[in-house]
Amino acid sequence: MDMKYDFGMVGLGVMGRNFILNVSDNGFTAYGNDLDPEKVNALIKEGGDTSKVNASTDSKTFLEALSTPRKIMLLVPAGKIVDMVIESLLPNLDEGDLIIDGGNSFYTDTDRREAYLAKKGINFFGAGVSGGAKGARKGPSIMPGGNREAYQHVKPIFEAVAAKYQGEPCVAYLGPKSAGNYVKMVHNGIEYGLMQLTSELYDILKKGADYNNDELHKTFDAWNKGRLQSFLVEITSEIFEQEDDLAEGRLVDQILDKAKQKGTGKWTSQNAMDLGIPVPSIDIAVSMREISALKDERIEADRLYDRPKVEKMDKATMEKLAEESLYFSFIITYAQGLHQLADASKEYGYDLNIAEIAKIWRAGCIIRAGLLADISEAFETNPSLANLLMSPTFVEKVQGTVDSARELVAYGAKNGIPLPGLSNSLTYFDAYTSSRLPLNLIQAQRDYFGSHTYERLDREGIYHTEWEKE
Amino acid sequence: MDMKYDFGMVGLGVMGRNFILNVSDNGFTAYGNDLDPEKVNALIKEGGDTSKVNASTDSKTFLEALSTPRKIMLLVPAGKIVDMVIESLLPNLDEGDLIIDGGNSFYTDTDRREAYLAKKGINFFGAGVSGGAKGARKGPSIMPGGNREAYQHVKPIFEAVAAKYQGEPCVAYLGPKSAGNYVKMVHNGIEYGLMQLTSELYDILKKGADYNNDELHKTFDAWNKGRLQSFLVEITSEIFEQEDDLAEGRLVDQILDKAKQKGTGKWTSQNAMDLGIPVPSIDIAVSMREISALKDERIEADRLYDRPKVEKMDKATMEKLAEESLYFSFIITYAQGLHQLADASKEYGYDLNIAEIAKIWRAGCIIRAGLLADISEAFETNPSLANLLMSPTFVEKVQGTVDSARELVAYGAKNGIPLPGLSNSLTYFDAYTSSRLPLNLIQAQRDYFGSHTYERLDREGIYHTEWEKE
Repeated sequence: MDMKYDFGMVGLGVMGRNFILNVSDNGFTAYGNDLDPEKVNALIKEGGDTSKVNASTDSKTFLEALSTPRKIMLLVPAGKIVDMVIESLLPNLDEGDLIIDGGNSFYTDTDRREAYLAKKGINFFGAGVSGGAKGARKGPSIMPGGNREAYQHVKPIFEAVAAKYQGEPCVAYLGPKSAGNYVKMVHNGIEYGLMQLTSELYDILKKGADYNNDELHKTFDAWNKGRLQSFLVEITSEIFEQEDDLAEGRLVDQILDKAKQKGTGKWTSQNAMDLGIPVPSIDIAVSMREISALKDERIEADRLYDRPKVEKMDKATMEKLAEESLYFSFIITYAQGLHQLADASKEYGYDLNIAEIAKIWRAGCIIRAGLLADISEAFETNPSLANLLMSPTFVEKVQGTVDSARELVAYGAKNGIPLPGLSNSLTYFDAYTSSRLPLNLIQAQRDYFGSHTYERLDREGIYHTEWEKE
Repeated sequence: MDMKYDFGMVGLGVMGRNFILNVSDNGFTAYGNDLDPEKVNALIKEGGDTSKVNASTDSKTFLEALSTPRKIMLLVPAGKIVDMVIESLLPNLDEGDLIIDGGNSFYTDTDRREAYLAKKGINFFGAGVSGGAKGARKGPSIMPGGNREAYQHVKPIFEAVAAKYQGEPCVAYLGPKSAGNYVKMVHNGIEYGLMQLTSELYDILKKGADYNNDELHKTFDAWNKGRLQSFLVEITSEIFEQEDDLAEGRLVDQILDKAKQKGTGKWTSQNAMDLGIPVPSIDIAVSMREISALKDERIEADRLYDRPKVEKMDKATMEKLAEESLYFSFIITYAQGLHQLADASKEYGYDLNIAEIAKIWRAGCIIRAGLLADISEAFETNPSLANLLMSPTFVEKVQGTVDSARELVAYGAKNGIPLPGLSNSLTYFDAYTSSRLPLNLIQAQRDYFGSHTYERLDREGIYHTEWEKE
């Protein structure tokens, strides 16, 4: 075996197989490794030509087949398996080899692994990959972080396989250590927020104006041709068209309303709290998945309470309010996620370029949207933008749509149709744009019962008052 | 020194000093220890009689002064200091002694310390203490967890010093390991929620109906005499009366609107996410403290956006809506926190008695409220209540007030007055009482892009669909 392969992949599940075939499509030779012989054989068969794509169940054969420095990507479940794979590879690696974890590993795990492997002369990358199975095959968005110099070895391959937005590859070196995993985590947090919002708008169109699935399809399809153009709106429109193979009607109506989660949205919220950055549109998306899981309790509680009778809205009014509300709340959700990234960049030393991140999200990934071109421009114009809401372009977009969000939140509240994501986006906006909030009262309460002190508006210093009159 | 003291206290800050004086008031002798001689002398002076209250800067003298098994409470800052104090005491302790951590330690730290000390024959308790400085002096609510048998040694002292609700002491053995710290953490999470809600209602009374501070005082005072009777409503009414020593007018108007936090609210939210229990009224209270801290950004953002002109509401209408909304959202916030406790009880093996917890919160602590008597009754009637919202008594209370919450949320949304806590309480209610939520769409999306599968309404099993039409 003289010929050496350009790129190695451990884990030949649907993501790994698709990614490696994508590498091969783009003129690089690739070698896969999986303990499961069926997966190995499936790849060899699908690849067609073993001089281009080959695979083995044997780790040593796999490592010997790769040109050095080896570029080995792992697409295996996050957690202990990543550590196990690393340990199994380690004895046969050479100094300068690269291991690239393409899974959704928690960022502190990536930091730990990077430091551990750096001591052994091995480069470790956390590289979030978004786009699902199809993205992996046809062009994902890739978010790599690690050693900047070592990235050069894998850059040509990643740029070739990544999705392209007007010719530009949706991949860039993002920063040191866990920068790539962290950015992917927040990407997923935003994804949770956007998915929750689309589900709310679907609900209100249906309950508030009797949209049927065909009308929902047409509406989301029309939205996808306008400023709401995005992968999630696009697939939503398609979902409403899907016939059910097992029963009459459309499939969407038979799907159980218990949404599962794999943890990245939750991590985003929990970490935002550690940073002290508010991301309520993401938090509530996590909460709603949790509430959805309590199906039995919901059925019981539903029986106990009367709901308001829904005052139907005419379709034209509803459609305008809904489109503007979705646009408004999408912007707010991106704003929160990017705010978190900017803060994490300082806190963890990632030195992130937010404009660049928005750029590599413009195609390939789940949160790709027309909006991201505007977002990247806003941060290119002003890289130190404290919040997307401060960008003049976005002031116009938000000011032009917020009134519809107000109307729709009010309508949902009165009619008992929950719009938690939209409500949280609106209250975030109203609070963030309030120079004065009523939390002076909270500081007074804290000082009253816990002597926690307070500051004043009219003079510097820290103050405490003996509030009680006894 | 022949006489031995009943109770020891390490840490003579305001909480520790007040607690030890409370112990002494109730007929037990007590001995304090602090590295700071000023604090030691201050306690001796305030105690008056060293045969009843004494203190020393020396740890060995302190330990020798205590009767065995020693009952030593720590009221020192949470974190490493607790470990340092434990290590410094350890060489001179005897088997069977009790260390009681009265601070807001993170529950996993308590579990770690309990296991560590158990091996050495020392009993370790995490005992949350709520009520602030005044509570510590006059009667706090105490939430102890640890070894059930060892608790008997300290039980008489705790029952004597705790606040009393109609003669019943606001302390009870809550469960093993970190049960006490965990319950206190969720207590504080609920506290965050209730404080946020009072601040929102203050804001809307002021902005929506031009309430001045005297009217705010009267309104909260009147509420405190009704079903909203609670410590937080009471002190809020007093806060509006407080004159400013440094400038004209009332102090509340000069307090900076940046609310600080010490972490227990954040921990509650983060841990609820780990458990998968939705507590959005607490989450948003954490977020609002974070937004409040971004004062400079808020001032800048305020200049960039136009706000709607507030349509004023007449005072009588506003007051009714506000009172009912606050009552509604207080209930929802307690419901969420208690839901979290019930789930944590199973997850961490605490075997909590929710009715008992509600009972010991009826007096002494920051979240004490008339409502807690009803809450404890609801859980006594049905200890396996899945959620407070299922209790017949509470169905009535909630059904009777939710329409006002709907009105007020709608009003706030339309008029640009953020009511994030109230909105989240309402959308939580509307979602929790919905047998069908639109998260079927989220499951469809997840299956579309990630082959994550879904379940169906009409038949058992796990399904996957090839959604794309290519």
